Amino acid sequence: MIYRSIRQMHKMLGQLDTWLVKTAEYAQKKPFDVNTLLTFRLAPDQHSFVRQVQSSCDHAKMAAARLTGKEAPKHPDDEQTFEALHARIRAVRTWLDGFSAADFEGAEKRIVTYPPWEGKVMLGEDYLLERALPNFFFHVTHAYAILRNNGVDLGKKDYIGQLSLRAP
Amino acid sequence: MIYRSIRQMHKMLGQLDTWLVKTAEYAQKKPFDVNTLLTFRLAPDQHSFVRQVQSSCDHAKMAAARLTGKEAPKHPDDEQTFEALHARIRAVRTWLDGFSAADFEGAEKRIVTYPPWEGKVMLGEDYLLERALPNFFFHVTHAYAILRNNGVDLGKKDYIGQLSLRAP
Repeated sequence: MIYRSIRQMHKMLGQLDTWLVKTAEYAQKKPFDVNTLLTFRLAPDQHSFVRQVQSSCDHAKMAAARLTGKEAPKHPDDEQTFEALHARIRAVRTWLDGFSAADFEGAEKRIVTYPPWEGKVMLGEDYLLERALPNFFFHVTHAYAILRNNGVDLGKKDYIGQLSLRAP
Repeated sequence: MIYRSIRQMHKMLGQLDTWLVKTAEYAQKKPFDVNTLLTFRLAPDQHSFVRQVQSSCDHAKMAAARLTGKEAPKHPDDEQTFEALHARIRAVRTWLDGFSAADFEGAEKRIVTYPPWEGKVMLGEDYLLERALPNFFFHVTHAYAILRNNGVDLGKKDYIGQLSLRAP
């Protein structure tokens, strides 16, 4: 289920990518420069849109890295256009595609470390449920909320995406 | 891990409860009537604050119900004060406390039905990862974002809460 959680983050990053497309279409129609949205934020001491997207990517990336012990690729957070954000999302999704379920064997009990924890550690499953997933959804949802707050026509289906429905 | 996911929702509802307390303190200090925030929304076609809180409660409640086959208590969505929202959150958290890990045995493969799926079904794990958790975090984060957008002094620690840190 840990691998499946990483795949869910991969899927949500794909949804996020479609919101950027819809936002660019909306901007072209109005018209306005879509990149003006990069610095938009819902509170002066919250992250801007561009940082929300970067953080969404980072939380997915770091979850996969920390839960498997692999090193994550570095991204310098220098995106200044929607095109660059597309590329960032694409890079992280492609990197996540390199994992298989086998990479996450034993991840539940894997020791996760993080400098701000001052020497303390978390077990993999605790880390995933208490920190990685909540943080990931926090930033993805803030990105979504910023776009909705600016009039972009997104709905719950854009957020949730396709479900694994099957015949009964 | 399914039971642990339900416990994480239980925990996040507890965090949400503390945001309401901080918001009431902020309102008293300014001062303004805290209940004016109940109808605040980030976009005219998004849910209001009160509905975001109700939906957070409902997604946690329905996840536990659908994944165990138990019937969920009904809530008429008639809250008109912060006090009533506290009571709603408390009721759902208390109901969730009645579950044990054993109730979720086999939940991964449990058949989940939902009227809008037109006869199709989801397996429990798919439902949890693709629908229940994303929806739950969507509404909790929107509640948080609405409060931040209105100047309430919340931070990431209020969102994440206590982590299960342990000695290495």
